[in-house]
Amino acid sequence: MAPRTPRPVVTVDVKKKTWEQPTPLHNRWHPEIPPVGEVKEGELFRVETVDWTGGQILDDDSAEDMKHIDLTTVHNLSGPIRVTDTSGLPAMPGDLLMVEICNLGPLPGDEWGFTGIFDRENGGGFLTDHFPAASKAIWHFDGIFASSRHIPGVRFPGLIHPGLIGTAPSKELLDIWNAREKALVEEGEKSVTLGKHLHTRPLALLPGAKGALLGKVESGTMDWERIAVEAARTIPGRENGGNCDIKNLSRGCKVYFPVFVEGANLSMGDMHFSQGDGEVSFCGAIEMSGFLELRCEILRGGMEQYLTPMGPTKLHVNPIFEIGPLEPRFSEWLVFEGLSVDESGKQHYLDASISYKRAVLNCIDYLSKFGYTKEQVYLLLSCCPCEGRISGIVDVPNACATLAIPIRIFDQDIRPKKGGPLAGPRLVKRGGVPTSSYDGHLPTTLNHAFAM
Amino acid sequence: MAPRTPRPVVTVDVKKKTWEQPTPLHNRWHPEIPPVGEVKEGELFRVETVDWTGGQILDDDSAEDMKHIDLTTVHNLSGPIRVTDTSGLPAMPGDLLMVEICNLGPLPGDEWGFTGIFDRENGGGFLTDHFPAASKAIWHFDGIFASSRHIPGVRFPGLIHPGLIGTAPSKELLDIWNAREKALVEEGEKSVTLGKHLHTRPLALLPGAKGALLGKVESGTMDWERIAVEAARTIPGRENGGNCDIKNLSRGCKVYFPVFVEGANLSMGDMHFSQGDGEVSFCGAIEMSGFLELRCEILRGGMEQYLTPMGPTKLHVNPIFEIGPLEPRFSEWLVFEGLSVDESGKQHYLDASISYKRAVLNCIDYLSKFGYTKEQVYLLLSCCPCEGRISGIVDVPNACATLAIPIRIFDQDIRPKKGGPLAGPRLVKRGGVPTSSYDGHLPTTLNHAFAM
Amino acid sequence: MAPRTPRPVVTVDVKKKTWEQPTPLHNRWHPEIPPVGEVKEGELFRVETVDWTGGQILDDDSAEDMKHIDLTTVHNLSGPIRVTDTSGLPAMPGDLLMVEICNLGPLPGDEWGFTGIFDRENGGGFLTDHFPAASKAIWHFDGIFASSRHIPGVRFPGLIHPGLIGTAPSKELLDIWNAREKALVEEGEKSVTLGKHLHTRPLALLPGAKGALLGKVESGTMDWERIAVEAARTIPGRENGGNCDIKNLSRGCKVYFPVFVEGANLSMGDMHFSQGDGEVSFCGAIEMSGFLELRCEILRGGMEQYLTPMGPTKLHVNPIFEIGPLEPRFSEWLVFEGLSVDESGKQHYLDASISYKRAVLNCIDYLSKFGYTKEQVYLLLSCCPCEGRISGIVDVPNACATLAIPIRIFDQDIRPKKGGPLAGPRLVKRGGVPTSSYDGHLPTTLNHAFAM
Amino acid sequence: MAPRTPRPVVTVDVKKKTWEQPTPLHNRWHPEIPPVGEVKEGELFRVETVDWTGGQILDDDSAEDMKHIDLTTVHNLSGPIRVTDTSGLPAMPGDLLMVEICNLGPLPGDEWGFTGIFDRENGGGFLTDHFPAASKAIWHFDGIFASSRHIPGVRFPGLIHPGLIGTAPSKELLDIWNAREKALVEEGEKSVTLGKHLHTRPLALLPGAKGALLGKVESGTMDWERIAVEAARTIPGRENGGNCDIKNLSRGCKVYFPVFVEGANLSMGDMHFSQGDGEVSFCGAIEMSGFLELRCEILRGGMEQYLTPMGPTKLHVNPIFEIGPLEPRFSEWLVFEGLSVDESGKQHYLDASISYKRAVLNCIDYLSKFGYTKEQVYLLLSCCPCEGRISGIVDVPNACATLAIPIRIFDQDIRPKKGGPLAGPRLVKRGGVPTSSYDGHLPTTLNHAFAM
Repeated sequence: MAPRTPRPVVTVDVKKKTWEQPTPLHNRWHPEIPPVGEVKEGELFRVETVDWTGGQILDDDSAEDMKHIDLTTVHNLSGPIRVTDTSGLPAMPGDLLMVEICNLGPLPGDEWGFTGIFDRENGGGFLTDHFPAASKAIWHFDGIFASSRHIPGVRFPGLIHPGLIGTAPSKELLDIWNAREKALVEEGEKSVTLGKHLHTRPLALLPGAKGALLGKVESGTMDWERIAVEAARTIPGRENGGNCDIKNLSRGCKVYFPVFVEGANLSMGDMHFSQGDGEVSFCGAIEMSGFLELRCEILRGGMEQYLTPMGPTKLHVNPIFEIGPLEPRFSEWLVFEGLSVDESGKQHYLDASISYKRAVLNCIDYLSKFGYTKEQVYLLLSCCPCEGRISGIVDVPNACATLAIPIRIFDQDIRPKKGGPLAGPRLVKRGGVPTSSYDGHLPTTLNHAFAM
Repeated sequence: MAPRTPRPVVTVDVKKKTWEQPTPLHNRWHPEIPPVGEVKEGELFRVETVDWTGGQILDDDSAEDMKHIDLTTVHNLSGPIRVTDTSGLPAMPGDLLMVEICNLGPLPGDEWGFTGIFDRENGGGFLTDHFPAASKAIWHFDGIFASSRHIPGVRFPGLIHPGLIGTAPSKELLDIWNAREKALVEEGEKSVTLGKHLHTRPLALLPGAKGALLGKVESGTMDWERIAVEAARTIPGRENGGNCDIKNLSRGCKVYFPVFVEGANLSMGDMHFSQGDGEVSFCGAIEMSGFLELRCEILRGGMEQYLTPMGPTKLHVNPIFEIGPLEPRFSEWLVFEGLSVDESGKQHYLDASISYKRAVLNCIDYLSKFGYTKEQVYLLLSCCPCEGRISGIVDVPNACATLAIPIRIFDQDIRPKKGGPLAGPRLVKRGGVPTSSYDGHLPTTLNHAFAM
Repeated sequence: MAPRTPRPVVTVDVKKKTWEQPTPLHNRWHPEIPPVGEVKEGELFRVETVDWTGGQILDDDSAEDMKHIDLTTVHNLSGPIRVTDTSGLPAMPGDLLMVEICNLGPLPGDEWGFTGIFDRENGGGFLTDHFPAASKAIWHFDGIFASSRHIPGVRFPGLIHPGLIGTAPSKELLDIWNAREKALVEEGEKSVTLGKHLHTRPLALLPGAKGALLGKVESGTMDWERIAVEAARTIPGRENGGNCDIKNLSRGCKVYFPVFVEGANLSMGDMHFSQGDGEVSFCGAIEMSGFLELRCEILRGGMEQYLTPMGPTKLHVNPIFEIGPLEPRFSEWLVFEGLSVDESGKQHYLDASISYKRAVLNCIDYLSKFGYTKEQVYLLLSCCPCEGRISGIVDVPNACATLAIPIRIFDQDIRPKKGGPLAGPRLVKRGGVPTSSYDGHLPTTLNHAFAM
Repeated sequence: MAPRTPRPVVTVDVKKKTWEQPTPLHNRWHPEIPPVGEVKEGELFRVETVDWTGGQILDDDSAEDMKHIDLTTVHNLSGPIRVTDTSGLPAMPGDLLMVEICNLGPLPGDEWGFTGIFDRENGGGFLTDHFPAASKAIWHFDGIFASSRHIPGVRFPGLIHPGLIGTAPSKELLDIWNAREKALVEEGEKSVTLGKHLHTRPLALLPGAKGALLGKVESGTMDWERIAVEAARTIPGRENGGNCDIKNLSRGCKVYFPVFVEGANLSMGDMHFSQGDGEVSFCGAIEMSGFLELRCEILRGGMEQYLTPMGPTKLHVNPIFEIGPLEPRFSEWLVFEGLSVDESGKQHYLDASISYKRAVLNCIDYLSKFGYTKEQVYLLLSCCPCEGRISGIVDVPNACATLAIPIRIFDQDIRPKKGGPLAGPRLVKRGGVPTSSYDGHLPTTLNHAFAM
């Protein structure tokens, strides 16, 4: 009997450009991007992916690549993969597609990754009003562990996962996405609370042909031109899964995806060696190329059986995730809290995003007392296995969000102690991260507590 | 040598009214509420508390008490307790007060609790636009386990914690609270995104003498009258800790509180047998009376050493929490996702509160397929050990929030399966919860997917 | 509806002698010891126990009490408790009795415990040939944590459990016990491998009237005299459960006991605040008085359904244990190994007891490099949450046993490091434990590696 | 900067015979077997191994290969590997060699394994007196999960580990091994308690040239002949580590080995996809070929600093293991107990091996009530992540050993319930395992409880 070796469905060559890959990649969502392979229910198969930027970031000590990154070309995805049952009938709209992540990891020979802060005027991140300049940290992997020459003194096991995995949208669903995101952009910053606080970030990225990669759609054709301007960008998670960035979606987990097109057309990419809840610096996980070994199952009619649409159409659903027993377990955590009062002291109403921003800022300031620069901590919180919780969402007017850091990832004891943290000559400086200049004109948020 | 038995500092009698307790309670924050006891650094001491409502809710099968609850009288707190070092010098402003939770539990003879939904026009909750009527569930405790005659088929270990614990504010901090919350109320609903979605809830509860309980402040005096109109309500968590509702703050945890007044003046109450992240139904934990065994330590000058204020003053800080090794560990979870698209299909910008609302709604709908009413699940998600995460907060325009349910708290397998959940005659109805009529006039949010 | 408070069935007064307790105790197993109370299936009830010695050990700094302890009077048990179903029919021989441990803890006002080494000629322990003199350590409890003035620098959460819990034997089972243990004693040391190594320990304790406590059996009667010489001692675990010393049998666990007599006649005692696997120093757990809150269920005919007897009769069975989700979880362990080669270098054949002895000795020597005396570590390994495993039992001729220590219970990092442990003036001596003189004549085992 | 890819030091070709491998293998311990490669401290390197039998067992449905396996040729090891510090100085006798297991797994293209019972007259296993005939089960891997067509209804994540890893012995240590094992064989069965119960198993396997594989030692030379008759067999774990079969020694763990020869000469093999504590059926883990990614560190003088020899020489030491944070965590266990009373009802004295045998027998009988044959369960307990504990080793005369099974690896609920397990037509038979005839003449142990 044959050993059960996963069948390769997509392979990549990280030395080649994204548009030169043996199996064509894509970086947009559209129902008409043709499958590059087909798998049967129950079959174990293997998919390789490039990193989300397709090789734009180098393992070096400069942040210039991070500063000038081209966002029109991301995320580079492997797929779509058509899924059929054992008799060859494809998954159909209305089914649920169960995808089990049996194994995954970095590509052999390419065992490294990066975490970055984007320039405030090129995408930015969650704290872009505090950290406007591009930075990066490079991570090397010792098996399950990651460590960085740019952030010494921390080492942690990766909870490897695909940041992005999803089924293809139908045309109807695609139209819904494009309409609602366009409305947001048109309504503009005035419509949003958070816009006042993160106001330099794009509200949404609407479809656009520039940088588009459409897999097997023949380039230069009228189809290509049409699809390129219709196809949705891949930045946000949506009804089809997509860029959910769920950090625990690792070995042994299952996802139940809604199926919107015949064959399901599963795509994936943006692999992370590790990520913190929120992925706060945006390019915030330890981004890498990698492989996944997957197994699918089709639950016929599962959408109606298990998902309740909520919204104007029956397509307004979300996938369900099942977490397995193989997470790293940390037994001690230091937890930082944030309430919905912003840096200027203004009271907001149950705004969990502002609360979480404050929790992250509190943690950055705290850890910077142990020898790190704030940029180092910002990058670290983006990618280490920290947990971001919505602890209280009803105690008007304050939402309470918390950020929990596993104590044992540090080589020093970071708990509060009588006498305070080591200071003066005893303090070991923990180096720094490569950072570019910020040449823009948008102001950095002041900490008024020190402006007095 | 004497056995190390905790010294009782506050005892309560649950058969008495809140204003008749042997040690006077308080339900407002104010620097001038005098201590009711004093403890030394290192000393193990015991504090008893009434439930947060002070006995307004009964162990019966009617939701009328929940409907007509008087919110002006909550939370009923035990304390303040003055803390000194071993030489008798009190904790001073600028210090950190470490409070270790050595043990805690329900009061012997009073081993039960309640979870409630408030009427939409009397406070409501996170999903009050979907669930406007008052409901409740009663829980009995078998040691570490809770079960409810109103929500059969679930049983889970409690992660007992104080929903509310904090130090007294200084006058300066109190003024900051009152000013910013007043500004929010005055600015009104137009100023908030969420106001459009939870628009019947009070934006904030401003100070008011009605229902005030001020401990040892002599009632009828001018001081009482002044303090009652200055003192802050206890609903939100704030810089002093307070009503943080952090569900993991159980046996073996430590909190590092900022000290704002001489003696620190620690108060606590609102004990929960168990709570889900978010405490979504507002009276959402398993609310109970209880006891705490605590130990304090003073970190002199710790505020400056460990906390970085962020805001207009040096008082804009938050406590830090350290989680211990004794949590119940669940190895399998079902995870529901929500994005910042609301029930009408409208796109919001990185709004984690809306994302979490959607994740909770998705979970309620899912679990209702297994024989439960939606009210039952709403109550269950408020109080069972579920985790609410901010998974992605940077993928414009969608924040991704997730709600993870431990699979093993149910007596049936709730995972998706081929063929769908049991239905028709095989479906076991899981009873219901006592629910009052909703006599208000505010509309319930429609699910447009079913309105087609 | 009434709150669900556990009904007290046995209460004790730790200030009274064991024979003066309000509810009579017993320290022997016999079918004719009458029940002291009755509980119904499903009912939550409470049992209090004295410590296993019945107050012979004091919270002081001398080991004289430990040296002269009277072993004829242990273990002091609470019960028997008769169990019936909801219609009043008692559990019957052939049934399984499920006992759920809903809660348990130290007795309020008596929050301390002790760990002891017995004199080599008064019972000894697992390493009595290395540690012949009596010693003790006193532990105080801060809620869930234990710490000792005699073993500074360690603090750990207790996994509280009853060392001894079991159903009453039938006369037939009692006769089997007495016959086989008498045969062992008569066959003598020549019959056992281990006798060569632990040869000063009693092989078994046979029935004897001296020190017997027989509950409600009227003292001075012929029945008393007869039962006292028939009744089994309580030291070993046997078919009825009994002194199994399973350290994880804590809150939320269930035991399925075989029922041998009408009513099951459940007894318990020997409560431990914490224990290491093996309880190596014999009086090795943190011994204490305490309370248990229990709930029973009767599985009619369950012995035949679930237990397969193995031996000459259908009574040769063992109980089954179900461990709950509430253990403390440690994520890092240091593991010591032992093989079945003894201290003289002699090879034994797959003898896991010798392997475990060697693993424990290896660990004692290792930890003594961090400032502790060997007696301190021996006591610590008896009572801290360490795990003893049979890792390999088939690789002839060596059984491989391992002892795993949770790293985080120490206030120093005990992992091997370049440069070795702190030594010389940097070494902090960790005090010592009170130890008596050893006045016997049996030789201590030499470490031949140092005798060269 | 170069990505940190592990450097291959030993590669194997599973299609080739063990004596035809590109890097020569060895199956004996001897100081003069020359290194096949060299690594530097801190370097990440990769070692591939064949399965312990070197390909003798096939992925088919017959147990004939298991019955006729040639034990003279095991274990097939990769190495020795010489370790130096960064300046090129080798590890020296008296140092400790830290080996970190950074990653490990099955060989790509060979993702399957086997578990076997050996014929009673060809090695047998822990329960060979109950199960004399050869059997086997084949396991296929879906990423981290193993499942078997021979034992349906179970699936569990592997805790992959090397069953055998160790440093080379010095000549002095080798002589000690050979002398003590020879003495055991010569003293014969009369000297051992267990011999009466497992009397058909070899007491030890002494050196012998038949089947020897000696790596780079040139075959046909006088050196080869001499070394072959001196070199120790690899079956037992010994002072150098070796075949310890510690099931938790997986990703992220460290081992601190004593160094006995210049360069340390590290060898390894016998990879297990998963193993139960005890590896009871002897060929009991899920045996497979595989790879390891390792990193070494040299602790100069570490043997004296950290290990205390116990025995006639300073070489009588054992390695230390450090377990990492990445184990699968199961939250619910069913625990079976065994006491030192054997199947004939005879009382033994604190014999943990007999207690563990009884615990395993109790578990086999229990699980066979759920549709499995006893052979299936025996194989399952050998390889699934079950834990074997020495719970009590001092309660004369009974040692108490326990075996804990994670409940969630089964597709049915195996807990005791009212009414008993499903029986009669409702019972689903769970197939069987391929089993050979037992043609020997040694009697099977009777269960006297059924012989009445």
